[in-house]
Amino acid sequence: MLVVQKYGGTSVGSLERIRAVAARVLARQRSGDQVVVVVSAMAGETNRLIELANALHLVAREREQATGTDSKGWVAPLKRDDPGFDREFSQLVSTGEKVSAALMAMAIQDLGGAAVSLVGHQLGVVTSGSYTNARITSIDGQRIHALLDADTIVVCAGFQGLDEQGNVTTLGRGGSDTSAVALAAAIQADECEILTDVDGVFTSDPRVVPTARKLDRISHEEMLELASLGSKVLQIRSVEFAKKYGVLVHVRSSQHLEEGTKIVPETPDMEAVLVAGVALDRDEAKITITNCPDVPGTIATVFTTLGARGIVVDMIIQNASRDARTDVTFTVPEAELARATESLRELALICEPGVELLTDAGIAKISIVGVGMRTHAGVAAKAFTILAEEGVNIQMVSTSEIKVSVVVDEKYGELALRALHDGFGLHRAPG
Amino acid sequence: MLVVQKYGGTSVGSLERIRAVAARVLARQRSGDQVVVVVSAMAGETNRLIELANALHLVAREREQATGTDSKGWVAPLKRDDPGFDREFSQLVSTGEKVSAALMAMAIQDLGGAAVSLVGHQLGVVTSGSYTNARITSIDGQRIHALLDADTIVVCAGFQGLDEQGNVTTLGRGGSDTSAVALAAAIQADECEILTDVDGVFTSDPRVVPTARKLDRISHEEMLELASLGSKVLQIRSVEFAKKYGVLVHVRSSQHLEEGTKIVPETPDMEAVLVAGVALDRDEAKITITNCPDVPGTIATVFTTLGARGIVVDMIIQNASRDARTDVTFTVPEAELARATESLRELALICEPGVELLTDAGIAKISIVGVGMRTHAGVAAKAFTILAEEGVNIQMVSTSEIKVSVVVDEKYGELALRALHDGFGLHRAPG
Repeated sequence: MLVVQKYGGTSVGSLERIRAVAARVLARQRSGDQVVVVVSAMAGETNRLIELANALHLVAREREQATGTDSKGWVAPLKRDDPGFDREFSQLVSTGEKVSAALMAMAIQDLGGAAVSLVGHQLGVVTSGSYTNARITSIDGQRIHALLDADTIVVCAGFQGLDEQGNVTTLGRGGSDTSAVALAAAIQADECEILTDVDGVFTSDPRVVPTARKLDRISHEEMLELASLGSKVLQIRSVEFAKKYGVLVHVRSSQHLEEGTKIVPETPDMEAVLVAGVALDRDEAKITITNCPDVPGTIATVFTTLGARGIVVDMIIQNASRDARTDVTFTVPEAELARATESLRELALICEPGVELLTDAGIAKISIVGVGMRTHAGVAAKAFTILAEEGVNIQMVSTSEIKVSVVVDEKYGELALRALHDGFGLHRAPG
Repeated sequence: MLVVQKYGGTSVGSLERIRAVAARVLARQRSGDQVVVVVSAMAGETNRLIELANALHLVAREREQATGTDSKGWVAPLKRDDPGFDREFSQLVSTGEKVSAALMAMAIQDLGGAAVSLVGHQLGVVTSGSYTNARITSIDGQRIHALLDADTIVVCAGFQGLDEQGNVTTLGRGGSDTSAVALAAAIQADECEILTDVDGVFTSDPRVVPTARKLDRISHEEMLELASLGSKVLQIRSVEFAKKYGVLVHVRSSQHLEEGTKIVPETPDMEAVLVAGVALDRDEAKITITNCPDVPGTIATVFTTLGARGIVVDMIIQNASRDARTDVTFTVPEAELARATESLRELALICEPGVELLTDAGIAKISIVGVGMRTHAGVAAKAFTILAEEGVNIQMVSTSEIKVSVVVDEKYGELALRALHDGFGLHRAPG
């Protein structure tokens, strides 16, 4: 069996952990498998490098703009919109994975194994697009296969590639997951393991829903729709890649050898399970424009304006027209709410008499996902019933082929999530 | 004018210093010159990376072997004699220069300049030899020239190259100096500036000789012989490279704009100055083997034994034979004295009756260097006179074309150095 194993920053966050991973990798190889390892930078290293770049930049310009860390402790790089700067930024931050790859190869050698680390130009990972959010276009698997055939463990620096001109590019935060899946596709690996500090993908967030269960498997499509659950364990773009190239991804713990969750192509028997998981998203905000003139093109200007500013609109609802006037409601990321309202207030439409712009950051979105919905009606109706029994009012609804999303008052978010999780029977093991 | 400027680890040791260097580089370019910058890793970074590798290795093997820092604060990597490990070691430590190159390019951009950093595979530096002590065989200057012609400052990561197979190689400690000189040769630069924290090359060590003067110029040959003076400001291998390719090297301070010392090809007028500098070396030890049988080949076994263990023998003196017996005295690095005596004691020769092995770590070697010696006799005689007047006994002497070295008791080392410095008129400005 040919397996690609990806270890994240926490799993390689200290020399002790690197040694533990090296031992696991070597044991896997000695059990008869060929192993390619993809590593992230040691935990904290990418932040350190970004902070160097930010500090250089901030002091040089005496900017007031503060940088913070997001919910994952990631430091946001200052935005420059400058390709020259972005190029150097990628040259800089890509060194973190080079360091951990070399240390991992050394650790495997120290345990008596044969290992070689490969970085960007040695891997033959060619990318297109921007320097700092590049997309993999091709990988030359020849050198990897040659090393594997010589019983060598290949350790690859994740997160990076080269463009056609040989400039170093990076794949965006969490890009090592995409590196691993793309490598697995290129060398036709049997499986791509994503080893992380959680046990797998759950039917919901276990911190909110005590009855949440680990899924043995989930389809690529479901995983994509459950982005907010999935983003805690792997970069969602890697799932798109896995779906496109039919790569079997196995999300599992780096701390023990229990099986995790396999992300697999959809099979007919999966439709027997109506709902695969429910996810809660507190990071959206609601905007309502009341009494809009219901004339073709009027409301389009709203979304054109937001789109031009790169603000992603998620759910959109438009009420039936009354007196040639209508209310339109939509959601945007909460972090973009101020920018969104600011740009909307500049529109002539909003300044018309009677038109009001209302915002509400206190909402929660719950998504119910499952490929079983394709063949079974009534999921939305059942969700309404469950929430009504709990006395939770539904503010917005949207449905797609395998997903029903409802927006509720943020204070009822966790209650609604638990009710829907158990109401759809996710607390019970299938079978 | 096309100039290569090399900045060492201290000069790029903090973001403030990187910004200061960026300003200097940009000012130079704006004065009308084309500028290529070669940077070392930020001070402390290479040690950090080596310590990571050492720690990984030490804990894994529970070795007792301690690692220390040398007189320059350099951490010694653990020796493995393992090409696989050496390969990973180079992949690891070469990241330090990649980081400082990217930061330097960003800093120049922040000041409004155009800059691009180039690392190993982008520079086209091809090396041969070992992974960790590689030698540059060729450099492709095409990309650098194209960038310079587009008014861009090119920032190169020093210390590294790629072998023919695309593996990352490093040039040994201080290798960024060699990178700079080799780049200057490859792109036919008018000058290679080595910017450092000293003002230039001095007639002697100013900490020992208060009357030491900064030299305006010195020949490549003299610089090579004054290795112990030179090693404080630049890697001696870079001087060999500069000599071979006729590169004009300018050692100067990164703290101010005063001219430093130019290392230039020898010209006839240089012979007017008898002595260019005097250097003190306390790091050698003396070994004497008394009553050696003076039979061809006997003494050769001594040096063959030491050579096989990689121990470099410097000065060798053999007294005239008496009763077919002779005394032989030589010097080895003090740090190798224990290993040297240990291996010599295994020789049958040393075990013969009457043969004694004597060692003395308390010696100092003083070297008097100048191309003027080629045409002027009597330097050794004058040195003897000067030292005799100070009551300093000479234990060993060796002479070469442009150098006279004497070994004295270590306690007289500094006194002898000062006496010779001023005795040869080095305290006076030439002219």
